[in-house]
Amino acid sequence: MVYDTVIIGSGLAGLTASIYASRYQMTNIVIGKVLGGTITLAHQVENFPGFPSISGIELSQKIAEQVKGLGAEIVAEKVVEVEIMAFTDGKKHFKVITETGKQYEARTLIVTTGTERRKLGVAGEREYLGKGVSYCTNCDAPFFKNKKVAVVGGGDAAVSGAVHLAGFASKVFLIHRRDEFRAEPIWVEDALSNQKIEVLFNTQVLEIIGDGNKVTAIKIDKEVDGSKIPIDGIFVEIGGIPESGLLSSLGVSLDENNFVVTSERMETSVPGLFAAGDFTTQGLIMSQAITACAQGAIAAASAFKYIKNKNAPRI
Amino acid sequence: MVYDTVIIGSGLAGLTASIYASRYQMTNIVIGKVLGGTITLAHQVENFPGFPSISGIELSQKIAEQVKGLGAEIVAEKVVEVEIMAFTDGKKHFKVITETGKQYEARTLIVTTGTERRKLGVAGEREYLGKGVSYCTNCDAPFFKNKKVAVVGGGDAAVSGAVHLAGFASKVFLIHRRDEFRAEPIWVEDALSNQKIEVLFNTQVLEIIGDGNKVTAIKIDKEVDGSKIPIDGIFVEIGGIPESGLLSSLGVSLDENNFVVTSERMETSVPGLFAAGDFTTQGLIMSQAITACAQGAIAAASAFKYIKNKNAPRI
Repeated sequence: MVYDTVIIGSGLAGLTASIYASRYQMTNIVIGKVLGGTITLAHQVENFPGFPSISGIELSQKIAEQVKGLGAEIVAEKVVEVEIMAFTDGKKHFKVITETGKQYEARTLIVTTGTERRKLGVAGEREYLGKGVSYCTNCDAPFFKNKKVAVVGGGDAAVSGAVHLAGFASKVFLIHRRDEFRAEPIWVEDALSNQKIEVLFNTQVLEIIGDGNKVTAIKIDKEVDGSKIPIDGIFVEIGGIPESGLLSSLGVSLDENNFVVTSERMETSVPGLFAAGDFTTQGLIMSQAITACAQGAIAAASAFKYIKNKNAPRI
Repeated sequence: MVYDTVIIGSGLAGLTASIYASRYQMTNIVIGKVLGGTITLAHQVENFPGFPSISGIELSQKIAEQVKGLGAEIVAEKVVEVEIMAFTDGKKHFKVITETGKQYEARTLIVTTGTERRKLGVAGEREYLGKGVSYCTNCDAPFFKNKKVAVVGGGDAAVSGAVHLAGFASKVFLIHRRDEFRAEPIWVEDALSNQKIEVLFNTQVLEIIGDGNKVTAIKIDKEVDGSKIPIDGIFVEIGGIPESGLLSSLGVSLDENNFVVTSERMETSVPGLFAAGDFTTQGLIMSQAITACAQGAIAAASAFKYIKNKNAPRI
């Protein structure tokens, strides 16, 4: 079968694109490895309209249920390749191939693969991944009950993550290379007033040190106990890099930081190929759950319009 | 007191702007006559992420509770005037005056007054308002149990409204001046397959006829029983016109249809004055609950940035 649209990525942008595609009666399927995407890293979402307080995972699950209730399937796989198939009659389809070799054909694509966690790039980071090094305060906080941890970063994820961690850990060092946070003031206030959190501004982590099995300390560029801080875990929350690799091979225009260039209708430079969410230039305006959802909805509307103009009317 | 931002309009754009403003720790207040705005006309919202099915009124109330929970007040009044107050030190404040003469001063404004229902402009329409003439299928459908009604229009509101009405009325004439609907296909299919709904394409209502107390019939431009159809109620669902009058006096740029010209950051042509929702040019891209919410969030972020640059940093 040829889908009206295949949605790559199962974060909030992709899930909302599916809701709208289904409402528009477009056959569609969502393919993505991490259900919910980036929002699953948020232990407490309090700015999504309609939900005074909900975990990112719970919000994702609710929306995924809605997607399935409207008839769309969600395939929990990573897409490894996308091809454009040109037919002699001028029609163009997309072929999507997953990590297990499953293939899907579509009239349009909506790509919402988001961003990947940025790494510190210091010694020990790769070696101790999952052994004290984490990129998800929300997922891993409970493992650090009564332990000492560090959080690196200055945005919402870092500062709110430090507050969350303080509910488990005995001590949280919040380490930021600049002299002020860019996180929401409400989180900054929470962090600064929390007795368990010690903020180290103008500080960089130089090395993650372990005993071979797990993290035991970090080395920083400041004189604190000989520049080494004994810790049991370190959370790196310094943002994301766009997962736009799949698209560059198709000739989709990217900006200088590899974000997908999108119009306000979420069109990319390739006709029939739409993008939504954090890894688009529209996403750079504001990177929030609510804006990602709106972009997904707009992408679905644009995909619908694309099919309607090029093929038989569906209204 | 001087608010960081006064939000005019209590639809979903305004309410979400308040959620974000509060999260940014900006003092803010929402002033609007109709809590929920246009979404309250939707009897069943099934495309808002996180809510498989909810009435527009219930969704608005949930979000309003969230707004209040974050500390902002909602004033149920109409704003009748907005003034720009210039100070000698170059500072500029906005003064907002309500219908009862209440005054509010603000560093920034976020205006989200949306659209007003478009009228048919035929004889009897004004005379029988509330006596059979309605602009809200959702609000008034239950009053027409086992009665005959007409719905005028071809968009989502009209077609989904006709389906909703068919749950109460004995017969629904769905009257559209064009030869196809522009509503979501899912609603069109529901309407066309509903035995109680009779669709009249290429048809216009010329007059609403009553007995002095209530509507008894409509006159159309087609020969159906002598061009008169006996009905008990008529629902006019032919779209909205932007409520941008308040802003034109401030010199805010409007487009040729009086929609407020906004950047993708929801800035208007007047510094410090932001707009979001259905009555903006950004809203013309897609006019949905989810996009209005996203625009409200972006407007709040832009207002925050405006204050932060011009006044003391708040981070």
